[in-house]
Amino acid sequence: MTLRAADTAAADRAAIRAGEHTGPTSGLAPGFAQANLVILRADEALDFLRFCVRNPKPCPLLEVTDTGSPHPFGIAADADLRTDLPRYRVFHDGHLVDEPTDIAGQWRTDLVSFLLGCSFTFEWALAAAGLPIAHQVQGVNVPMYVTDRRCTPAGRFDGPLVVSMRPFPADTVPRAVEISARFPAMHGAPVHIGDPAEIGISDLATPDFGDAVRVGADEVPVFWACGVTPQAVAIEARPSLAIFHAPGHMFITDRRHGDFDNEEGHDHR
Amino acid sequence: MTLRAADTAAADRAAIRAGEHTGPTSGLAPGFAQANLVILRADEALDFLRFCVRNPKPCPLLEVTDTGSPHPFGIAADADLRTDLPRYRVFHDGHLVDEPTDIAGQWRTDLVSFLLGCSFTFEWALAAAGLPIAHQVQGVNVPMYVTDRRCTPAGRFDGPLVVSMRPFPADTVPRAVEISARFPAMHGAPVHIGDPAEIGISDLATPDFGDAVRVGADEVPVFWACGVTPQAVAIEARPSLAIFHAPGHMFITDRRHGDFDNEEGHDHR
Repeated sequence: MTLRAADTAAADRAAIRAGEHTGPTSGLAPGFAQANLVILRADEALDFLRFCVRNPKPCPLLEVTDTGSPHPFGIAADADLRTDLPRYRVFHDGHLVDEPTDIAGQWRTDLVSFLLGCSFTFEWALAAAGLPIAHQVQGVNVPMYVTDRRCTPAGRFDGPLVVSMRPFPADTVPRAVEISARFPAMHGAPVHIGDPAEIGISDLATPDFGDAVRVGADEVPVFWACGVTPQAVAIEARPSLAIFHAPGHMFITDRRHGDFDNEEGHDHR
Repeated sequence: MTLRAADTAAADRAAIRAGEHTGPTSGLAPGFAQANLVILRADEALDFLRFCVRNPKPCPLLEVTDTGSPHPFGIAADADLRTDLPRYRVFHDGHLVDEPTDIAGQWRTDLVSFLLGCSFTFEWALAAAGLPIAHQVQGVNVPMYVTDRRCTPAGRFDGPLVVSMRPFPADTVPRAVEISARFPAMHGAPVHIGDPAEIGISDLATPDFGDAVRVGADEVPVFWACGVTPQAVAIEARPSLAIFHAPGHMFITDRRHGDFDNEEGHDHR
Protein backbone atom coordinates (compact mmCIF):
# COMPACT_ATOMS: atom_id res chain seq x y z
CA MET A 1 0.00 0.00 0.00
CA THR A 2 1.24 3.49 -0.74
CA LEU A 3 0.68 6.34 1.61
CA ARG A 4 0.12 9.97 0.79
CA ALA A 5 2.93 11.93 2.40
CA ALA A 6 1.85 13.41 5.70
CA ASP A 7 2.86 16.79 7.02
CA THR A 8 5.07 15.39 9.75
CA ALA A 9 7.55 12.62 10.17
CA ALA A 10 5.66 11.36 13.25
CA ALA A 11 2.44 10.94 11.25
CA ASP A 12 4.21 8.93 8.57
CA ARG A 13 5.96 6.78 11.19
CA ALA A 14 2.55 6.15 12.83
CA ALA A 15 1.09 5.03 9.49
CA ILE A 16 4.05 2.71 8.92
CA ARG A 17 3.70 1.34 12.47
CA ALA A 18 0.00 0.66 11.79
CA GLY A 19 0.92 -1.33 8.67
CA GLU A 20 -0.69 1.23 6.34
CA HIS A 21 2.53 1.68 4.39
CA THR A 22 4.96 -1.15 3.60
CA GLY A 23 6.75 0.30 0.56
CA PRO A 24 9.88 2.45 0.13
CA THR A 25 10.03 5.71 2.06
CA SER A 26 11.25 7.92 -0.78
CA GLY A 27 8.88 10.88 -0.98
CA LEU A 28 7.38 10.38 2.48
CA ALA A 29 7.53 13.19 5.05
CA PRO A 30 8.93 15.75 2.59
CA GLY A 31 11.61 17.94 4.14
CA PHE A 32 12.50 15.42 6.84
CA ALA A 33 15.82 13.54 6.86
CA GLN A 34 15.78 9.75 6.65
CA ALA A 35 18.37 7.32 8.02
CA ASN A 36 19.97 3.92 7.44
CA LEU A 37 19.45 1.37 10.23
CA VAL A 38 21.95 -1.23 11.46
CA ILE A 39 21.14 -3.41 14.51
CA LEU A 40 23.77 -5.67 16.10
CA ARG A 41 24.33 -7.48 19.40
CA ALA A 42 26.08 -5.40 22.06
CA ASP A 43 29.23 -7.52 21.98
CA GLU A 44 29.82 -6.48 18.35
CA ALA A 45 28.73 -2.86 18.84
CA LEU A 46 32.10 -1.46 19.96
CA ASP A 47 33.88 -2.74 16.84
CA PHE A 48 31.08 -1.53 14.59
CA LEU A 49 31.22 1.90 16.24
CA ARG A 50 34.98 1.95 15.63
CA PHE A 51 34.29 1.03 12.00
CA CYS A 52 31.91 4.00 11.66
CA VAL A 53 34.36 6.45 13.29
CA ARG A 54 37.11 5.23 10.93
CA ASN A 55 34.90 5.42 7.85
CA PRO A 56 32.78 8.53 8.32
CA LYS A 57 31.90 9.04 4.65
CA PRO A 58 30.07 5.72 4.13
CA CYS A 59 29.05 5.47 7.83
CA PRO A 60 28.07 8.91 9.16
CA LEU A 61 26.79 8.20 12.68
CA LEU A 62 23.62 10.06 13.61
CA GLU A 63 22.70 8.04 16.71
CA VAL A 64 23.50 4.96 18.75
CA THR A 65 20.80 3.65 21.07
CA ASP A 66 21.26 2.37 24.60
CA THR A 67 21.68 -1.41 24.73
CA GLY A 68 18.23 -3.01 24.59
CA SER A 69 16.40 0.22 23.84
CA PRO A 70 14.45 0.40 20.57
CA HIS A 71 14.08 4.17 20.92
CA PRO A 72 16.37 6.61 19.12
CA PHE A 73 17.69 9.07 21.60
CA GLY A 74 17.32 12.52 20.13
CA ILE A 75 16.58 12.24 16.44
CA ALA A 76 12.99 11.05 16.93
CA ALA A 77 12.33 10.54 20.61
CA ASP A 78 8.86 8.96 20.33
CA ALA A 79 9.79 6.49 17.61
CA ASP A 80 10.15 2.72 17.96
CA LEU A 81 12.80 1.13 15.75
CA ARG A 82 11.05 -2.26 16.00
CA THR A 83 7.94 -1.10 14.13
CA ASP A 84 8.53 2.27 12.50
CA LEU A 85 10.33 1.16 9.33
CA PRO A 86 8.20 -0.36 6.56
CA ARG A 87 10.43 -3.36 5.99
CA TYR A 88 13.51 -4.96 7.57
CA ARG A 89 16.09 -7.57 6.57
CA VAL A 90 17.15 -10.07 9.23
CA PHE A 91 20.49 -11.93 8.87
CA HIS A 92 21.75 -14.92 10.88
CA ASP A 93 25.48 -15.62 10.49
CA GLY A 94 25.56 -13.51 7.33
CA HIS A 95 22.54 -15.22 5.70
CA LEU A 96 19.25 -13.46 4.97
CA VAL A 97 16.53 -15.30 6.89
CA ASP A 98 13.55 -12.92 6.83
CA GLU A 99 12.22 -9.64 5.43
CA PRO A 100 9.49 -8.75 7.95
CA THR A 101 7.50 -5.51 8.27
CA ASP A 102 8.29 -5.34 11.97
CA ILE A 103 10.92 -6.92 14.22
CA ALA A 104 9.03 -6.98 17.54
CA GLY A 105 9.37 -10.77 17.57
CA GLN A 106 13.12 -10.68 16.93
CA TRP A 107 13.84 -8.05 19.57
CA ARG A 108 16.38 -8.87 22.30
CA THR A 109 17.63 -6.94 25.30
CA ASP A 110 21.25 -7.10 24.07
CA LEU A 111 20.68 -5.27 20.77
CA VAL A 112 22.21 -1.92 19.85
CA SER A 113 20.82 0.17 16.98
CA PHE A 114 22.82 2.53 14.80
CA LEU A 115 21.24 5.25 12.68
CA LEU A 116 23.43 6.47 9.81
CA GLY A 117 22.99 9.39 7.42
CA CYS A 118 21.18 8.87 4.10
CA SER A 119 21.73 10.44 0.68
CA PHE A 120 18.11 11.64 0.43
CA THR A 121 19.22 14.80 2.23
CA PHE A 122 21.88 15.87 -0.24
CA GLU A 123 19.61 14.79 -3.12
CA TRP A 124 17.01 17.16 -1.70
CA ALA A 125 19.61 19.95 -1.63
CA LEU A 126 20.77 19.18 -5.20
CA ALA A 127 17.19 19.24 -6.47
CA ALA A 128 16.51 22.46 -4.57
CA ALA A 129 19.48 24.00 -6.37
CA GLY A 130 18.02 23.04 -9.75
CA LEU A 131 20.25 20.03 -10.43
CA PRO A 132 18.03 17.20 -11.73
CA ILE A 133 18.94 13.76 -10.37
CA ALA A 134 19.07 11.19 -13.16
CA HIS A 135 17.59 8.18 -11.36
CA GLN A 136 14.67 10.29 -10.12
CA VAL A 137 14.02 11.66 -13.62
CA GLN A 138 14.27 8.12 -15.06
CA GLY A 139 12.03 6.74 -12.29
CA VAL A 140 14.43 4.06 -11.03
CA ASN A 141 16.53 3.37 -7.91
CA VAL A 142 19.97 4.93 -7.61
CA PRO A 143 22.70 2.60 -9.02
CA MET A 144 25.21 1.32 -6.45
CA TYR A 145 28.58 -0.35 -7.05
CA VAL A 146 31.11 -2.27 -4.96
CA THR A 147 34.51 -0.56 -5.52
CA ASP A 148 38.08 -1.81 -5.21
CA ARG A 149 38.71 0.69 -2.40
CA ARG A 150 38.85 -0.89 1.04
CA CYS A 151 37.32 0.71 4.10
CA THR A 152 39.54 1.08 7.16
CA PRO A 153 38.82 -2.13 9.11
CA ALA A 154 37.79 -2.47 12.76
CA GLY A 155 37.86 -5.95 14.28
CA ARG A 156 35.78 -8.29 12.10
CA PHE A 157 34.33 -5.38 10.16
CA ASP A 158 36.44 -5.24 7.02
CA GLY A 159 35.17 -4.74 3.49
CA PRO A 160 35.01 -2.63 0.34
CA LEU A 161 33.58 0.84 -0.07
CA VAL A 162 30.20 0.78 -1.81
CA VAL A 163 29.28 3.91 -3.79
CA SER A 164 26.17 5.36 -5.36
CA MET A 165 26.41 7.11 -8.74
CA ARG A 166 24.61 10.15 -10.09
CA PRO A 167 25.61 11.60 -13.48
CA PHE A 168 25.71 15.38 -13.99
CA PRO A 169 26.51 17.61 -16.97
CA ALA A 170 30.22 18.48 -16.74
CA ASP A 171 29.54 22.15 -16.04
CA THR A 172 27.35 21.44 -13.01
CA VAL A 173 29.69 18.91 -11.33
CA PRO A 174 31.49 21.53 -9.20
CA ARG A 175 28.10 22.76 -7.92
CA ALA A 176 27.04 19.18 -7.10
CA VAL A 177 30.27 18.71 -5.12
CA GLU A 178 29.86 22.03 -3.31
CA ILE A 179 26.26 21.33 -2.30
CA SER A 180 26.74 17.75 -1.11
CA ALA A 181 29.88 18.76 0.82
CA ARG A 182 27.64 20.89 3.05
CA PHE A 183 26.14 17.67 4.47
CA PRO A 184 29.01 15.64 6.00
CA ALA A 185 26.50 13.74 8.18
CA MET A 186 24.77 12.59 4.97
CA HIS A 187 27.84 11.18 3.14
CA GLY A 188 29.21 14.65 2.25
CA ALA A 189 31.23 15.38 -0.88
CA PRO A 190 31.74 12.71 -3.59
CA VAL A 191 34.56 10.19 -3.21
CA HIS A 192 35.28 10.04 -6.96
CA ILE A 193 34.43 11.96 -10.14
CA GLY A 194 34.79 10.54 -13.65
CA ASP A 195 36.31 7.27 -14.87
CA PRO A 196 34.60 4.38 -13.06
CA ALA A 197 37.56 2.06 -13.80
CA GLU A 198 39.72 4.10 -11.42
CA ILE A 199 37.71 2.80 -8.49
CA GLY A 200 37.33 -0.73 -9.86
CA ILE A 201 33.94 -0.42 -11.55
CA SER A 202 34.11 -2.23 -14.91
CA ASP A 203 30.61 -1.46 -16.25
CA LEU A 204 28.24 1.29 -15.15
CA ALA A 205 25.39 -0.55 -16.88
CA THR A 206 25.49 -3.42 -14.38
CA PRO A 207 25.27 -1.98 -10.86
CA ASP A 208 25.68 -4.33 -7.89
CA PHE A 209 22.56 -2.87 -6.25
CA GLY A 210 19.76 -0.65 -7.55
CA ASP A 211 19.14 0.12 -11.23
CA ALA A 212 21.30 1.32 -14.11
CA VAL A 213 20.74 4.91 -15.23
CA ARG A 214 21.50 6.39 -18.63
CA VAL A 215 24.58 8.63 -18.63
CA GLY A 216 24.43 11.29 -21.38
CA ALA A 217 27.39 12.00 -23.68
CA ASP A 218 28.02 15.37 -21.99
CA GLU A 219 27.59 13.93 -18.51
CA VAL A 220 30.17 12.88 -15.92
CA PRO A 221 29.50 10.06 -13.43
CA VAL A 222 29.85 11.28 -9.83
CA PHE A 223 30.29 8.74 -7.02
CA TRP A 224 29.31 9.17 -3.38
CA ALA A 225 30.07 6.89 -0.42
CA CYS A 226 26.93 4.84 0.13
CA GLY A 227 24.99 3.70 3.19
CA VAL A 228 24.97 0.16 1.76
CA THR A 229 28.67 -0.06 2.75
CA PRO A 230 28.05 -0.76 6.45
CA GLN A 231 25.33 -3.26 5.55
CA ALA A 232 27.64 -5.14 3.16
CA VAL A 233 30.52 -5.04 5.65
CA ALA A 234 28.32 -6.09 8.58
CA ILE A 235 26.94 -9.06 6.62
CA GLU A 236 30.48 -10.11 5.59
CA ALA A 237 31.51 -10.13 9.27
CA ARG A 238 28.84 -12.85 9.76
CA PRO A 239 27.51 -11.70 13.11
CA SER A 240 25.14 -14.15 14.77
CA LEU A 241 22.32 -11.62 14.33
CA ALA A 242 22.15 -8.46 12.21
CA ILE A 243 19.05 -6.49 11.27
CA PHE A 244 18.92 -3.69 8.67
CA HIS A 245 16.29 -1.59 6.94
CA ALA A 246 15.29 -3.18 3.63
CA PRO A 247 16.87 -1.17 0.79
CA GLY A 248 14.92 2.05 0.27
CA HIS A 249 12.76 1.38 3.34
CA MET A 250 14.43 3.92 5.58
CA PHE A 251 13.81 5.33 9.06
CA ILE A 252 12.10 8.74 8.94
CA THR A 253 13.60 11.13 11.50
CA ASP A 254 12.12 14.25 13.12
CA ARG A 255 15.02 16.33 11.84
CA ARG A 256 14.72 18.60 8.81
CA HIS A 257 17.21 18.27 5.96
CA GLY A 258 18.47 21.77 6.74
CA ASP A 259 19.41 20.67 10.27
CA PHE A 260 22.33 18.82 8.69
CA ASP A 261 23.50 21.71 6.51
CA ASN A 262 26.89 22.82 7.81
CA GLU A 263 26.46 26.17 6.10
CA GLU A 264 23.33 26.84 8.11
CA GLY A 265 25.50 26.70 11.19
CA HIS A 266 23.98 23.40 12.32
CA ASP A 267 27.25 21.57 12.36
CA HIS A 268 25.62 18.34 13.45
CA ARG A 269 28.33 15.74 13.22
CA MET B 1 62.52 21.62 29.51
CA THR B 2 61.12 23.49 26.54
CA LEU B 3 61.65 22.35 23.02
CA ARG B 4 62.10 24.46 19.94
CA ALA B 5 59.27 23.56 17.59
CA ALA B 6 60.37 21.01 14.99
CA ASP B 7 59.28 20.99 11.38
CA THR B 8 57.22 17.87 11.72
CA ALA B 9 54.81 16.38 14.19
CA ALA B 10 56.80 13.12 14.23
CA ALA B 11 60.00 14.92 15.28
CA ASP B 12 58.21 16.67 18.15
CA ARG B 13 56.59 13.41 19.26
CA ALA B 14 60.04 11.75 19.21
CA ALA B 15 61.47 14.52 21.41
CA ILE B 16 58.57 14.14 23.83
CA ARG B 17 59.01 10.35 23.85
CA ALA B 18 62.71 10.85 24.66
CA GLY B 19 61.80 13.04 27.64
CA GLU B 20 63.28 16.17 26.07
CA HIS B 21 60.00 18.05 26.38
CA THR B 22 57.64 17.70 29.35
CA GLY B 23 55.73 21.00 29.10
CA PRO B 24 52.55 22.08 27.33
CA THR B 25 52.35 21.43 23.59
CA SER B 26 51.00 24.84 22.56
CA GLY B 27 53.26 26.15 19.80
CA LEU B 28 54.87 22.78 19.02
CA ALA B 29 54.71 21.36 15.46
CA PRO B 30 53.16 24.52 13.99
CA GLY B 31 50.47 23.76 11.44
CA PHE B 32 49.71 20.33 12.86
CA ALA B 33 46.46 19.55 14.65
CA GLN B 34 46.59 18.39 18.28
CA ALA B 35 44.11 16.17 20.11
CA ASN B 36 42.58 15.45 23.51
CA LEU B 37 43.24 11.96 24.90
CA VAL B 38 40.83 9.81 26.94
CA ILE B 39 41.77 6.22 27.87
CA LEU B 40 39.24 3.85 29.47
CA ARG B 41 38.81 0.13 29.98
CA ALA B 42 37.07 -1.68 27.11
CA ASP B 43 33.97 -2.47 29.20
CA GLU B 44 33.27 1.27 29.51
CA ALA B 45 34.28 2.14 25.94
CA LEU B 46 30.90 1.50 24.31
CA ASP B 47 29.08 3.90 26.64
CA PHE B 48 31.81 6.51 26.27
CA LEU B 49 31.60 6.19 22.47
CA ARG B 50 27.83 6.67 22.72
CA PHE B 51 28.47 9.76 24.86
CA CYS B 52 30.76 11.19 22.15
CA VAL B 53 28.27 10.47 19.33
CA ARG B 54 25.51 12.17 21.37
CA ASN B 55 27.65 15.18 22.26
CA PRO B 56 29.69 15.91 19.14
CA LYS B 57 30.47 19.53 19.96
CA PRO B 58 32.39 18.90 23.20
CA CYS B 59 33.49 15.38 22.10
CA PRO B 60 34.40 15.39 18.40
CA LEU B 61 35.78 11.89 17.77
CA LEU B 62 38.91 11.78 15.65
CA GLU B 63 39.96 8.20 16.42
CA VAL B 64 39.27 5.17 18.58
CA THR B 65 42.05 2.61 18.93
CA ASP B 66 41.71 -1.15 18.86
CA THR B 67 41.41 -2.63 22.36
CA GLY B 68 44.89 -2.96 23.84
CA SER B 69 46.63 -1.07 21.05
CA PRO B 70 48.49 2.12 22.03
CA HIS B 71 48.76 3.14 18.37
CA PRO B 72 46.38 5.61 16.79
CA PHE B 73 45.02 4.13 13.62
CA GLY B 74 45.27 6.72 10.90
CA ILE B 75 45.93 10.11 12.48
CA ALA B 76 49.57 9.35 13.35
CA ALA B 77 50.30 5.71 12.52
CA ASP B 78 53.81 5.53 14.02
CA ALA B 79 52.90 7.18 17.31
CA ASP B 80 52.66 5.50 20.72
CA LEU B 81 50.02 6.91 23.03
CA ARG B 82 51.87 5.54 26.10
CA THR B 83 54.89 7.79 25.61
CA ASP B 84 54.17 10.49 23.05
CA LEU B 85 52.34 12.99 25.24
CA PRO B 86 54.44 15.11 27.60
CA ARG B 87 52.29 14.50 30.67
CA TYR B 88 49.30 12.38 31.66
CA ARG B 89 46.77 12.30 34.49
CA VAL B 90 45.83 8.90 35.90
CA PHE B 91 42.55 8.47 37.83
CA HIS B 92 41.42 5.49 39.92
CA ASP B 93 37.70 5.49 40.78
CA GLY B 94 37.51 9.19 39.92
CA HIS B 95 40.51 10.19 42.07
CA LEU B 96 43.75 11.60 40.63
CA VAL B 97 46.55 9.23 41.61
CA ASP B 98 49.45 10.22 39.35
CA GLU B 99 50.68 12.74 36.77
CA PRO B 100 53.43 10.80 34.98
CA THR B 101 55.33 11.70 31.81
CA ASP B 102 54.61 8.29 30.35
CA ILE B 103 52.07 5.55 31.08
CA ALA B 104 54.02 2.49 29.91
CA GLY B 105 53.80 1.09 33.46
CA GLN B 106 50.03 1.61 33.67
CA TRP B 107 49.28 0.06 30.28
CA ARG B 108 46.84 -2.86 30.10
CA THR B 109 45.60 -5.02 27.25
CA ASP B 110 41.99 -4.03 27.91
CA LEU B 111 42.44 -0.28 27.36
CA VAL B 112 40.78 1.73 24.58
CA SER B 113 42.05 5.19 23.63
CA PHE B 114 39.94 8.01 22.25
CA LEU B 115 41.40 11.02 20.44
CA LEU B 116 39.11 14.05 20.37
CA GLY B 117 39.42 17.34 18.48
CA CYS B 118 41.16 20.31 20.11
CA SER B 119 40.50 24.05 19.86
CA PHE B 120 44.07 24.80 18.77
CA THR B 121 42.92 24.22 15.18
CA PHE B 122 40.17 26.83 15.12
CA GLU B 123 42.40 29.21 17.11
CA TRP B 124 44.97 28.79 14.32
CA ALA B 125 42.30 29.65 11.76
CA LEU B 126 41.07 32.66 13.76
CA ALA B 127 44.62 33.98 14.09
CA ALA B 128 45.26 33.38 10.37
CA ALA B 129 42.19 35.51 9.63
CA GLY B 130 43.62 38.37 11.70
CA LEU B 131 41.44 37.87 14.78
CA PRO B 132 43.69 38.19 17.86
CA ILE B 133 42.92 35.66 20.60
CA ALA B 134 42.80 37.35 24.01
CA HIS B 135 44.42 34.65 26.17
CA GLN B 136 47.30 34.34 23.72
CA VAL B 137 47.82 38.12 23.65
CA GLN B 138 47.64 38.20 27.46
CA GLY B 139 49.96 35.19 27.74
CA VAL B 140 47.67 32.99 29.84
CA ASN B 141 45.68 29.76 29.43
CA VAL B 142 42.21 29.91 27.92
CA PRO B 143 39.52 30.31 30.64
CA MET B 144 37.10 27.39 30.98
CA TYR B 145 33.76 27.24 32.82
CA VAL B 146 31.34 24.54 33.91
CA THR B 147 27.90 25.55 32.58
CA ASP B 148 24.36 24.70 33.70
CA ARG B 149 23.74 22.94 30.40
CA ARG B 150 23.74 19.16 30.63
CA CYS B 151 25.26 16.92 28.03
CA THR B 152 23.11 14.12 26.64
CA PRO B 153 23.97 11.20 28.93
CA ALA B 154 25.08 7.68 27.94
CA GLY B 155 25.15 5.03 30.65
CA ARG B 156 27.27 6.30 33.57
CA PHE B 157 28.57 9.20 31.50
CA ASP B 158 26.39 12.11 32.54
CA GLY B 159 27.57 15.62 33.29
CA PRO B 160 27.59 19.31 32.45
CA LEU B 161 28.91 20.97 29.32
CA VAL B 162 32.25 22.70 29.93
CA VAL B 163 33.03 25.68 27.69
CA SER B 164 36.06 27.76 26.83
CA MET B 165 35.69 31.54 26.39
CA ARG B 166 37.36 33.93 23.98
CA PRO B 167 36.25 37.59 23.86
CA PHE B 168 36.03 39.39 20.50
CA PRO B 169 35.09 42.93 19.49
CA ALA B 170 31.37 42.90 18.66
CA ASP B 171 31.96 43.59 14.97
CA THR B 172 34.23 40.55 14.53
CA VAL B 173 32.01 38.03 16.34
CA PRO B 174 30.20 36.90 13.16
CA ARG B 175 33.57 36.24 11.50
CA ALA B 176 34.76 34.24 14.54
CA VAL B 177 31.60 32.12 14.33
CA GLU B 178 31.95 31.62 10.59
CA ILE B 179 35.59 30.53 10.82
CA SER B 180 35.24 28.14 13.76
CA ALA B 181 32.12 26.60 12.18
CA ARG B 182 34.35 25.34 9.35
CA PHE B 183 35.98 22.92 11.84
CA PRO B 184 33.20 20.69 13.25
CA ALA B 185 35.81 18.06 14.21
CA MET B 186 37.49 20.70 16.40
CA HIS B 187 34.43 21.82 18.42
CA GLY B 188 32.93 23.83 15.50
CA ALA B 189 30.82 26.94 15.98
CA PRO B 190 30.33 28.51 19.43
CA VAL B 191 27.58 27.18 21.70
CA HIS B 192 26.79 30.60 23.19
CA ILE B 193 27.50 34.28 22.51
CA GLY B 194 27.09 37.05 25.08
CA ASP B 195 25.62 37.00 28.60
CA PRO B 196 27.47 34.33 30.63
CA ALA B 197 24.55 34.11 33.12
CA GLU B 198 22.39 32.54 30.41
CA ILE B 199 24.52 29.39 30.55
CA GLY B 200 24.96 29.44 34.32
CA ILE B 201 28.29 31.27 34.57
CA SER B 202 28.09 33.74 37.44
CA ASP B 203 31.52 35.38 37.16
CA LEU B 204 33.84 35.42 34.14
CA ALA B 205 36.70 36.48 36.43
CA THR B 206 36.74 33.11 38.23
CA PRO B 207 37.01 30.33 35.63
CA ASP B 208 36.76 26.72 36.78
CA PHE B 209 39.88 25.81 34.78
CA GLY B 210 42.59 27.91 33.12
CA ASP B 211 43.09 31.63 33.69
CA ALA B 212 40.83 34.67 33.62
CA VAL B 213 41.23 37.01 30.65
CA ARG B 214 40.36 40.70 30.50
CA VAL B 215 37.22 41.38 28.45
CA GLY B 216 37.21 44.88 26.93
CA ALA B 217 34.19 47.20 27.13
CA ASP B 218 33.53 46.78 23.41
CA GLU B 219 34.07 43.04 23.51
CA VAL B 220 31.58 40.17 23.61
CA PRO B 221 32.41 36.85 25.34
CA VAL B 222 32.10 33.93 22.94
CA PHE B 223 31.80 30.37 24.33
CA TRP B 224 32.86 27.15 22.62
CA ALA B 225 32.24 23.55 23.71
CA CYS B 226 35.46 22.42 25.39
CA GLY B 227 37.49 19.21 25.35
CA VAL B 228 37.58 19.30 29.15
CA THR B 229 33.92 18.18 29.07
CA PRO B 230 34.64 14.48 28.40
CA GLN B 231 37.41 14.52 31.01
CA ALA B 232 35.09 16.02 33.66
CA VAL B 233 32.28 13.65 32.73
CA ALA B 234 34.56 10.60 32.63
CA ILE B 235 35.97 11.42 36.07
CA GLU B 236 32.46 11.90 37.49
CA ALA B 237 31.50 8.43 36.20
CA ARG B 238 34.24 7.07 38.53
CA PRO B 239 35.62 4.41 36.21
CA SER B 240 38.09 2.05 37.88
CA LEU B 241 40.83 3.43 35.62
CA ALA B 242 40.87 6.53 33.42
CA ILE B 243 43.89 8.22 31.87
CA PHE B 244 43.88 11.63 30.19
CA HIS B 245 46.40 14.08 28.78
CA ALA B 246 47.39 16.63 31.43
CA PRO B 247 45.68 19.96 30.60
CA GLY B 248 47.52 21.64 27.72
CA HIS B 249 49.77 18.60 27.22
CA MET B 250 48.07 17.35 24.08
CA PHE B 251 48.73 14.64 21.52
CA ILE B 252 50.36 16.01 18.34
CA THR B 253 48.84 14.41 15.22
CA ASP B 254 50.27 14.06 11.71
CA ARG B 255 47.27 15.91 10.28
CA ARG B 256 47.45 19.55 9.23
CA HIS B 257 44.91 22.02 10.60
CA GLY B 258 43.58 22.49 7.06
CA ASP B 259 42.73 18.77 6.85
CA PHE B 260 39.83 19.50 9.20
CA ASP B 261 38.54 22.53 7.29
CA ASN B 262 35.14 21.59 5.86
CA GLU B 263 35.42 24.40 3.31
CA GLU B 264 38.58 22.85 1.92
CA GLY B 265 36.48 19.85 0.96
CA HIS B 266 38.09 17.68 3.64
CA ASP B 267 34.87 16.92 5.37
CA HIS B 268 36.58 14.82 8.02
CA ARG B 269 33.91 14.05 10.55
